[in-house]
Amino acid sequence: MNNLILVRHGQSKWNELNLFTGWTDVDLTQNGIEEAYNAGKNLKEKGFNPQLCFTSYLKRAIKTLNIVLDAMDLDYLPIEKTWRLNEKHYGILQGKNKKAMVEEFGNEMVQKWRRGFDCPPPVLDKEEQMKQRNDPRYNSIPDNQMPYTESLKDCIERLMPFYHSCIEKELKAGKDILVVAHGNSLRGIVKHLKGISDDEIASLNIPTAIPYIFEFDDGLNLKKDYFLADQATLESAQQAVANQSKK
Amino acid sequence: MNNLILVRHGQSKWNELNLFTGWTDVDLTQNGIEEAYNAGKNLKEKGFNPQLCFTSYLKRAIKTLNIVLDAMDLDYLPIEKTWRLNEKHYGILQGKNKKAMVEEFGNEMVQKWRRGFDCPPPVLDKEEQMKQRNDPRYNSIPDNQMPYTESLKDCIERLMPFYHSCIEKELKAGKDILVVAHGNSLRGIVKHLKGISDDEIASLNIPTAIPYIFEFDDGLNLKKDYFLADQATLESAQQAVANQSKK
Repeated sequence: MNNLILVRHGQSKWNELNLFTGWTDVDLTQNGIEEAYNAGKNLKEKGFNPQLCFTSYLKRAIKTLNIVLDAMDLDYLPIEKTWRLNEKHYGILQGKNKKAMVEEFGNEMVQKWRRGFDCPPPVLDKEEQMKQRNDPRYNSIPDNQMPYTESLKDCIERLMPFYHSCIEKELKAGKDILVVAHGNSLRGIVKHLKGISDDEIASLNIPTAIPYIFEFDDGLNLKKDYFLADQATLESAQQAVANQSKK
Repeated sequence: MNNLILVRHGQSKWNELNLFTGWTDVDLTQNGIEEAYNAGKNLKEKGFNPQLCFTSYLKRAIKTLNIVLDAMDLDYLPIEKTWRLNEKHYGILQGKNKKAMVEEFGNEMVQKWRRGFDCPPPVLDKEEQMKQRNDPRYNSIPDNQMPYTESLKDCIERLMPFYHSCIEKELKAGKDILVVAHGNSLRGIVKHLKGISDDEIASLNIPTAIPYIFEFDDGLNLKKDYFLADQATLESAQQAVANQSKK
């Protein structure tokens, strides 16, 4: 039996300001730092013992992972970072206020961009595309794979090859794995593991910094999955995420 | 031309208490956190741009590296962690006060254990050996390679295979490399790079959290080496390290 532990990064400065973030590399808030620390303490108290970690190229996820490991006294664990675990790319919405976008484009359009399975926002403007192209962390991505906007479907399609070849492979080797990533890249993993449909995945709200545990038997069949939190904490955290684009 | 940047971890809680630390996994002090952040800011201002990082299995080095990378806005860089970059193992001295050991064993003996090239302290007692043997981060080290005390010579001998096969290899591939480690493991690298004799290496004091830059030409010949600090800061930092076991 082994575990896959998924953790969505703690609150970021743009979560707090209610801006679309996507691939923009914003930092954690003090609240996000504390959320991450509590997630680590909680995992340690419950006896979880990962041997290998994966995260994105974005500091809100990397720092959440570093803090979780520190709280678990497991700073020494190996970490693999990859752009394939990055948040969904939000195209021109990046840096824009969520409520302002609802006012400009209407709730239905913004909800489609946020939650539609196959509905990418308009692409990043040319100047921002150049900046991303020249960012050293992304300059080895081939032109035909480099996203300048993504639907949830696109995000999942660039994530899953990495999931299968790296994360799943290590689970099969019997390791317990910790993945710290983002709302939409984690949706992709959960969709795969639980066989959730394209239509239903949009309504799955993963709260920040609450460990989501997937327990497998030796044949890598999913035995159960649960959030490591009491019901009241969980519901309030999920509601906070669901409320973000409401007026 | 490329650079190897060596950084000794910031002040640890046992540096502050003046205890021998070795492989004991103690945390940074607030001062150590600030030292690390300043080292990162300094490297960023001077335009250093490493592409790959190495550190030990000990949290005072790992956290120093994480903070340096964060100050440089390079959180996403790959990091390889290895026990071979750990501090020299101090055997039974670990956890003991440096001045108390001078009082018990005399300054000459303690100086030999600290600074002699081939003079290991007495080995760890059996109970502590078992704890180290069962520590998940060390349980893949073969019995005949697992140290329970080390001279500087022993420390360098277990370090250099990793230096040649991993760090030097990446330098040869043209990368700029950042290594965050410990007083004695860094002595080993400096000894090799500068051809310092067994007798002289003991008197090289590497200050905490001041980047030590090695600049190579394309044939990996050392062109120059220098600390990234003004002379007064550097001398005061080196004196502080040299004073640690004086009464």
